[in-house]
Amino acid sequence: MPVMFATSDEAELALYDALERADLARLMQVWADDEEVICVHPGGLRVVGHAAIQESWQEILAGGGLHIRPSRSVILHSMMCAVHSLIEQITVNGPDATEVAHCYATNVFHKGPTGWRLVMHHASAAPMQAGVLDLHDVPGLLH
Amino acid sequence: MPVMFATSDEAELALYDALERADLARLMQVWADDEEVICVHPGGLRVVGHAAIQESWQEILAGGGLHIRPSRSVILHSMMCAVHSLIEQITVNGPDATEVAHCYATNVFHKGPTGWRLVMHHASAAPMQAGVLDLHDVPGLLH
Repeated sequence: MPVMFATSDEAELALYDALERADLARLMQVWADDEEVICVHPGGLRVVGHAAIQESWQEILAGGGLHIRPSRSVILHSMMCAVHSLIEQITVNGPDATEVAHCYATNVFHKGPTGWRLVMHHASAAPMQAGVLDLHDVPGLLH
Repeated sequence: MPVMFATSDEAELALYDALERADLARLMQVWADDEEVICVHPGGLRVVGHAAIQESWQEILAGGGLHIRPSRSVILHSMMCAVHSLIEQITVNGPDATEVAHCYATNVFHKGPTGWRLVMHHASAAPMQAGVLDLHDVPGLLH
């Protein structure tokens, strides 16, 4: 099935859907097929290139799908590039209870001949308050 | 002094130079003057907007300049946007010895009427091996 994402939002939706389903093939369709794509998993080493990134996700998804709710996106658009900054709310099923962890993710998408594709994913652990709070300019929100 | 960065590299150079000198005014000239700029400091809450970002750096630079050597950049260009992924080698002067910490930084620059400006900085702690190693496609490097 040929895949064409008309917007960066569509591509991002497909990304988190593929992670939920542990669908590696679908996941790698979201990534640009390029040697210079970049992925930083929380706490991990930087991964560069489509094949190495596929390998890294394969290891992660071997443990099953990831239940990630993307939230509170701030999106920076330019002509052929969209930068999404978001909070990943990750549901982790522990032995006794279900917990939610938070990560900051920066997802960068480029528009090419085959639509919008992911070229960078940088995720890192975030403080618990990240789920509800940014430090923000808007008067009244911070002070 | 009006400032105009002709390339994203120039803007990034000015960024780390301003941090070294603890020059807040210079630092904030590198950032786009926008409500939607984004900064994630390692371990901190996301900061959104020029004023809030200025406040966050002011606190950090109150302790003096930051000695950061940017290294091993991978740069993704599109028409009006450049995404730099790099390793920050941060020299920390402890009471007994000088240590080097590593962070992954994603710096995103947009090209506007006043040249290239920083619109996002996402930094997070990286493993020690990050200083010398990526997981990479190139045959022979990984396996």
